[in-house]
Amino acid sequence: MDKLSFQNPLFATYAVAASIMILKAVLMSWLTVVRMMQVKGGFRSPEDVRKTVLNPNPSPEQLAPNEYVDRIRRIQLNDLENLPYFLIAGFLFILTQPSLRLAQWLLYGYVVSRLLHFAAYFTARTHDTRATLWTVGSAILIFMTCWTLSAAWGA
Amino acid sequence: MDKLSFQNPLFATYAVAASIMILKAVLMSWLTVVRMMQVKGGFRSPEDVRKTVLNPNPSPEQLAPNEYVDRIRRIQLNDLENLPYFLIAGFLFILTQPSLRLAQWLLYGYVVSRLLHFAAYFTARTHDTRATLWTVGSAILIFMTCWTLSAAWGA
Amino acid sequence: MDKLSFQNPLFATYAVAASIMILKAVLMSWLTVVRMMQVKGGFRSPEDVRKTVLNPNPSPEQLAPNEYVDRIRRIQLNDLENLPYFLIAGFLFILTQPSLRLAQWLLYGYVVSRLLHFAAYFTARTHDTRATLWTVGSAILIFMTCWTLSAAWGA
Repeated sequence: MDKLSFQNPLFATYAVAASIMILKAVLMSWLTVVRMMQVKGGFRSPEDVRKTVLNPNPSPEQLAPNEYVDRIRRIQLNDLENLPYFLIAGFLFILTQPSLRLAQWLLYGYVVSRLLHFAAYFTARTHDTRATLWTVGSAILIFMTCWTLSAAWGA
Repeated sequence: MDKLSFQNPLFATYAVAASIMILKAVLMSWLTVVRMMQVKGGFRSPEDVRKTVLNPNPSPEQLAPNEYVDRIRRIQLNDLENLPYFLIAGFLFILTQPSLRLAQWLLYGYVVSRLLHFAAYFTARTHDTRATLWTVGSAILIFMTCWTLSAAWGA
Repeated sequence: MDKLSFQNPLFATYAVAASIMILKAVLMSWLTVVRMMQVKGGFRSPEDVRKTVLNPNPSPEQLAPNEYVDRIRRIQLNDLENLPYFLIAGFLFILTQPSLRLAQWLLYGYVVSRLLHFAAYFTARTHDTRATLWTVGSAILIFMTCWTLSAAWGA
């Protein structure tokens, strides 16, 4: 069967997991935008305190760090440190032709771990909760990558 | 036809768009280097103020934030928050076998939106201009990802 | 031969290089964790100074910047600015069907340049050493991407 066909359940599993993760990441950008507009602050470029349609009453304090906005930026950075690697690692992993059940557990398990990590970070749960959820995702990423490496090296 | 052949116009479209975006991203690193050498500052590591061939007259102020350099760093970070996801989303999108015309509009449209976003950020246009251009790219990314998700789920 | 088969030496070369780079990047996250636990500091979220099993004696100073931790964060950010683009550029490059020898030189050369860059950054060598190693990797990335672009455009 064509490895990159959406009729191939392994590839479809990857495409679903990857798409959800990409949408999740893009939504972080939009959430940052929403919060910046709510607090009218947390901006970062000098030109952002010019008077415009979207910012009719500018002030220099709008460039000060804002924890309400910065929380989302930290979540977004955490995504950057994880998701691009997952997107490649997951693709290579399904090309090793693992069992569908294993692929579903790992790929969907990763997605669930990241969504829960987001929920924990967003609601400011304790570090230990957030770290545990991050560890699950990181362990899946390491496992898939070692699996691919052993398939590629042994070939 | 081979989905990953450069003779396949869909894949060639993706490869051209992806390559331009990668080159654009890499050039941000080089632009940061150029600006750091121009102002002899904006460095970030303590060891960067040691006397070397490239830095014959070091001083502690070289580690202070420098807006001329930091502007490029912000553009680079914005690339990081967008391009890696586009590179995967665009690849999955062309695998859904959309019409060539749609793929060209979306992939090349994304490239153009990002180049204009760069021009607006680089020349410090108002936030509203920059935000509008960013929104075009983000909307294309979201559209392609939802399209892929629906193709993968429905399969 | 199947382009995405691990029996294809070009694809296997890419998969090995990509897997090593992904593992390298993920280990940066873990190294940050290890250092944060060693110095019990360098945290970034307000909730990280709550009393928990992993942080039994919290104090506000734990949120102050910590150079020992921040060095790893800078290395990790440098990875983010480079590796995701390499992972896509390398994949497209091997799809152009270059000679195996060229692919091995470029892909494994990139891996070696990044591991040496890490060693230089980790041990705080002078900026010039680190910059030279970074330049090797960046040049390989630019070369591979231009190669792909010319293959895609000429097709």
